[in-house]
Amino acid sequence: MILVADNIQINNKIIRKAVEEMDPEPVREMTRRCEEAGAEAIDINPGPLSRDPEKKMTFLVEAVQGVSDLPVLLDTANPRAIEAGLQANRKTAVINGFSLEPEKREAVLPLAKKFEADIIGYLLNPNGHVPPDGPERLTRAVELYEAFQKAGIDNERLIIDPIVVPVIWQNGNGQAMEVLSVIRQLPELLGFPVKTIVGLSNLTTGTGERERGLLLERTYLAMLASSGLSMVLLNILHHETVSTARACNALVVQKVFTWEEIG
Amino acid sequence: MILVADNIQINNKIIRKAVEEMDPEPVREMTRRCEEAGAEAIDINPGPLSRDPEKKMTFLVEAVQGVSDLPVLLDTANPRAIEAGLQANRKTAVINGFSLEPEKREAVLPLAKKFEADIIGYLLNPNGHVPPDGPERLTRAVELYEAFQKAGIDNERLIIDPIVVPVIWQNGNGQAMEVLSVIRQLPELLGFPVKTIVGLSNLTTGTGERERGLLLERTYLAMLASSGLSMVLLNILHHETVSTARACNALVVQKVFTWEEIG
Repeated sequence: MILVADNIQINNKIIRKAVEEMDPEPVREMTRRCEEAGAEAIDINPGPLSRDPEKKMTFLVEAVQGVSDLPVLLDTANPRAIEAGLQANRKTAVINGFSLEPEKREAVLPLAKKFEADIIGYLLNPNGHVPPDGPERLTRAVELYEAFQKAGIDNERLIIDPIVVPVIWQNGNGQAMEVLSVIRQLPELLGFPVKTIVGLSNLTTGTGERERGLLLERTYLAMLASSGLSMVLLNILHHETVSTARACNALVVQKVFTWEEIG
Repeated sequence: MILVADNIQINNKIIRKAVEEMDPEPVREMTRRCEEAGAEAIDINPGPLSRDPEKKMTFLVEAVQGVSDLPVLLDTANPRAIEAGLQANRKTAVINGFSLEPEKREAVLPLAKKFEADIIGYLLNPNGHVPPDGPERLTRAVELYEAFQKAGIDNERLIIDPIVVPVIWQNGNGQAMEVLSVIRQLPELLGFPVKTIVGLSNLTTGTGERERGLLLERTYLAMLASSGLSMVLLNILHHETVSTARACNALVVQKVFTWEEIG
């Protein structure tokens, strides 16, 4: 399970201010901290990008890659920002992401082919809503894959995000369990070892339950790992969550167990 | 997932001394602590019982049940001690347990019928060794179930322990993953909602890694819970492990999520 830091995001006040002022140093500093904390990739989420989308994404990609060789995930719904990010990228970039929403399919998916980039596909309905259960997510996965095939992109470039929803939603815990089942079923359903990613903090969105929320996230992370999750987007500065992720990898990954990986 | 305290055991110095001196108070005190900490059943493990097996098990069952209405698990290889425990029992008793070893089948299994008690069946080979992988465990499960049927005991009395092995064994982490798969497959394999139990501390037996060991146990517990484990034998005084178990139940159990269950 690859750990992707979600820390370079506009909801973080330091990052927001840095973007407003086009000051790369706070972004570089946060990138260094993420890498030291164990990040294996950096998600760049510049928010809605109502003004200057290309400029802001270019600024962030250059700031991050100025101090880090880690892959970056270009996490925006704005196709122009994604393209600018792909052009600025000097290492490895992943598009985050596309879905069955018509504008995403038409404007975002072709960028994966043009730039030979990996791309995350969300299991969302064409209207942008979250499917209510596991079977509907699997139906969306097949449609997403067909769109992917039609665009002529290699299978191995697809990374599926089955969409974790807040546990406080109606049947939120039931959906959390169905997401595990979707992750387990995808490789057989699509016929290749399809990679998967989830945003872990989605589980506790909308609650003020910090400590119990983090406990719930760690617990769910272990369940995700044993279901075969490939990548997890998380706050890499949450030390206990990262320790749990390492314990997961020591158990799940097919190699000789060593205590050195944990802690 | 039902939490079974493994704290009433002879490896605990306080319990050993209490058994030697036939002093019930330390056993009662530990039982009270277990119940306060969240135990939903109490495992009674009196050790090898080379002398006075009946007397020692009777003493322990009476001491525990003197202060608690929780079910007790009679955790011994000695059939005479099990029978004495079943006779002393005034609440609910579970036999822990039997396996395909001939002496266990012949001496222990009939006690479940005689006393109408639930009984734990270990997925061990007839020679007492641990099967090396998941498929062999499933073969043992079928044989165990056939022995169970032949003894004329109701399906619902069977609780299967797939045997967690130390992670530091050769391929110990691989076996930990196969145990998850066994737990998931058992209901379909045997054709009824078969209950399961594991001894969580087995995972870290033989290591001096206390903190990292507990982290690994918590992480694995979440994986077990999401695989459908019914009962877990654990040190109920490990607060963080119990918190994780509660977070597991809040996610896994099919009911409306509430934060009150966690923490």
